[in-house]
Amino acid sequence: MSEKLTKRSEDYSKWYNELVIKADLAEHSGVKGCMVIKPYGFAIWEKMKEILDKKFKETGHSNAYFPLFVPKSLFEAEEKNAEGFAKECAIVTHYRLKSDPNNKGKLIVDPEAKLEEELIVRPTSEAIIWNTYKSWIQSYRDLPILINQWANVVRWEMRTRLFLRTSEFLWQEGHTAHASKDEAMIETTKMLEVYSEFAEKYMAMPVIKGVKSENERFAGADETFCIEAMMQDGKALQAGTSHFLGQNFAKAFDVKYADKEGKLSYVWATSWGVSTRLMGALIMTHSDDDGLVLPPLLSPIQVVIIPIYKSEEERKKIEDLASEMTTQFNSKNISVKFDNDDNRRPGWKFAEYELKGVPVRITLGARDLLENKVEIARRDTKEKYSINIDVLYSHVENLLIEIQNSLFLKAIDFRKQHTFIIDDYTEFKNVIDKNPGFYLAHWDGTAETEEKIKSETQATIRCIPLDGDQTEGKCMFSGKKSVGRVIFAKAY
Amino acid sequence: MSEKLTKRSEDYSKWYNELVIKADLAEHSGVKGCMVIKPYGFAIWEKMKEILDKKFKETGHSNAYFPLFVPKSLFEAEEKNAEGFAKECAIVTHYRLKSDPNNKGKLIVDPEAKLEEELIVRPTSEAIIWNTYKSWIQSYRDLPILINQWANVVRWEMRTRLFLRTSEFLWQEGHTAHASKDEAMIETTKMLEVYSEFAEKYMAMPVIKGVKSENERFAGADETFCIEAMMQDGKALQAGTSHFLGQNFAKAFDVKYADKEGKLSYVWATSWGVSTRLMGALIMTHSDDDGLVLPPLLSPIQVVIIPIYKSEEERKKIEDLASEMTTQFNSKNISVKFDNDDNRRPGWKFAEYELKGVPVRITLGARDLLENKVEIARRDTKEKYSINIDVLYSHVENLLIEIQNSLFLKAIDFRKQHTFIIDDYTEFKNVIDKNPGFYLAHWDGTAETEEKIKSETQATIRCIPLDGDQTEGKCMFSGKKSVGRVIFAKAY
Repeated sequence: MSEKLTKRSEDYSKWYNELVIKADLAEHSGVKGCMVIKPYGFAIWEKMKEILDKKFKETGHSNAYFPLFVPKSLFEAEEKNAEGFAKECAIVTHYRLKSDPNNKGKLIVDPEAKLEEELIVRPTSEAIIWNTYKSWIQSYRDLPILINQWANVVRWEMRTRLFLRTSEFLWQEGHTAHASKDEAMIETTKMLEVYSEFAEKYMAMPVIKGVKSENERFAGADETFCIEAMMQDGKALQAGTSHFLGQNFAKAFDVKYADKEGKLSYVWATSWGVSTRLMGALIMTHSDDDGLVLPPLLSPIQVVIIPIYKSEEERKKIEDLASEMTTQFNSKNISVKFDNDDNRRPGWKFAEYELKGVPVRITLGARDLLENKVEIARRDTKEKYSINIDVLYSHVENLLIEIQNSLFLKAIDFRKQHTFIIDDYTEFKNVIDKNPGFYLAHWDGTAETEEKIKSETQATIRCIPLDGDQTEGKCMFSGKKSVGRVIFAKAY
Repeated sequence: MSEKLTKRSEDYSKWYNELVIKADLAEHSGVKGCMVIKPYGFAIWEKMKEILDKKFKETGHSNAYFPLFVPKSLFEAEEKNAEGFAKECAIVTHYRLKSDPNNKGKLIVDPEAKLEEELIVRPTSEAIIWNTYKSWIQSYRDLPILINQWANVVRWEMRTRLFLRTSEFLWQEGHTAHASKDEAMIETTKMLEVYSEFAEKYMAMPVIKGVKSENERFAGADETFCIEAMMQDGKALQAGTSHFLGQNFAKAFDVKYADKEGKLSYVWATSWGVSTRLMGALIMTHSDDDGLVLPPLLSPIQVVIIPIYKSEEERKKIEDLASEMTTQFNSKNISVKFDNDDNRRPGWKFAEYELKGVPVRITLGARDLLENKVEIARRDTKEKYSINIDVLYSHVENLLIEIQNSLFLKAIDFRKQHTFIIDDYTEFKNVIDKNPGFYLAHWDGTAETEEKIKSETQATIRCIPLDGDQTEGKCMFSGKKSVGRVIFAKAY
């Protein structure tokens, strides 16, 4: 821990960048646009993975693994998808290096080892997976296929930000194949529900479920569903997407199944994914000017115990107690760290674990212990108080639940305060910068209007909320008929 | 399940290839040299990962994630390492595709999007990681660094075999940094021990711990330790390696630490890894002519329950019982599948789960049930018998332990029968083909001798066993002095 973070009110973006680095979550690597996810950051991602993986399995999915590379001819088979990703593809063209004849000890690409067909590093795996499904699907008996993959993907980015936008990122991608349109649509919305529940219950991050406008749809999808969250600067962050792919990939790869009567039909598809971008969403939903604030359910360390002592005798007594506490907490599935590092003062440690977002801090002071008391500090509210050790375990157990709930309610409240109904476009242009947030407005449903609004305000339609206001009105931009309000916001 | 597998005695290699495909473990993909790991195969790999990951964490390691790409200038920094992998590197040279002006709907690599510096798809991550550690390490307080990464790597292969040799594979790679040589050496052997225990206890695969000769050492290591297993065709398979990297990477990337007195020294390093190759090892250690044989501790399904009934009434009764059994087994942490698929006959199912290596099969026959009995079939020995339902749960629990142990003992026995002491090189040349196995022979310690033996027999030194015969003798090839016996074998 060195000097303080930039305040959010001074420079939100700088605050975020500093926090990610100082809390040891991630850093930029020696490879342009790629990040290193550091152990502490990765431990949070691992918790997310574990919970999501369990939910995918409970909903009938299995994990598998498909190749990192997509041959160009497969990549371009589904034209819209290919077009959507073509401009951000890393491309492998050679398979061997050789010694540089002009520079001892250095290597050059061997021009004789040029691939006959270039390989695209997967930006998403629909193409390679549907080329595989082709041989797996003959009859209705082979359906549905419900597969998920945890993988790295690459989408070349010129301007990157840790977790939010990097050339390589980690994600999961579900790819399912179904006999009917209805079944595929049910799967699409089921997985949206899984994401939404995960975001709200575990990340303590409220999300709005909705459908993307055509402009914002996944390249190759018939319909993209999403969950949108609001960050503390009032911007929207797309936290997960679930795509109804129709028969687009089945047609591109000629994947048909025979029904009970032997009639051949194209297969229906979905895909859905969340990525390490969720780390950015988590950070920006709860954290404050002192650092990270983590919901207990995703915190690698839920309780940190910090000793304060002067004599060797006090030290011994505190260490025994801390060891007993660790056992007790662990038996309640609460993860604890006892930080008895002699090289650091308690004050340094307080700041350090605040920065790292540990939900509960227990200070074991020799003097308090004489009265059988310890000091509790809540990371989220900064509240501090003494309690009797006799009630410590059940108290902390409840406190963790309380913090989890409280973070969610606070975020809900923040979103409510930054969500506005708007009907006047001139006013919208004025307020979207001054008072960023979600603006519920009528829209005429055309891509043209959306693009004009975007070019004038940088705000986009984040989604058409599934349970939004569906009373008719007039588009705030064109005055034409609208079938309901959509959410306009600036977005990450 | 279609026709039978080729027998091992007829064509071992063909048997293996067929088994991997028919048991739904993996298949070749549309990308040359890359495999698709299918859900059933991946479920076994997930079990391995879970156990290993736990062991890495118990030994103090954390997971992190480093970039997929290594800029060429970093890649070539450690010259021996670079030289060792240069000939099998996939190289990214461009970052954008564009529409092919001569071929509507097709894409070409955009020549204007050529990277200034080529990126190597990681064949291993020492270079990118040590370039990162450079900024993490200043003082002895920053050490040790104990990090592991689960990742995909690419080593271009012309001739591939599923799991054993593919251009892309999945693995874990540990990368640690230490203040002293001793500490790094302790780490190297500690992780070898972790691998060896995992192989023997979970995979039921006996391994020999040893050191590689210089010829077989990891490029960039001072010393490579390994575990070597024997497959059923008498060939050796290197199942895991742990490298003592000395100060090679610290010197290449200029990574120094200040000790308590402020004196600067280069940091000491280790790296260690196992990969999806372990799947190949697992398959070839235990399986038979009827298919896969899985040790219970790694089997995604430990018990399969298959119903046999005629009437609807019998079906109902059996389904109720199966449901009760599932609950009971699950409460003992035994994974069960009840296969009540109406479209398949019991005989088909018997063969299918044999092929898939499920350790225990329970047949619920309506007639047996009248006598309160069920039929048990062991996958490994093919033994079948009836037992009373009252003792079923504890019986199966013990049976799974018994199968696990029995597979290990059988493999130990096989290895013993195929391990020979040999002193005569002419005889060796004769028997190594006729009677493949591990040959314990004296060797003069020179790379020259090793190479000559390899070129004449295709056998290599698999390792110098850590607890091998260290009495002096004469090299079987050169007659020169030898300090102990090493293992010669043909290898995967």
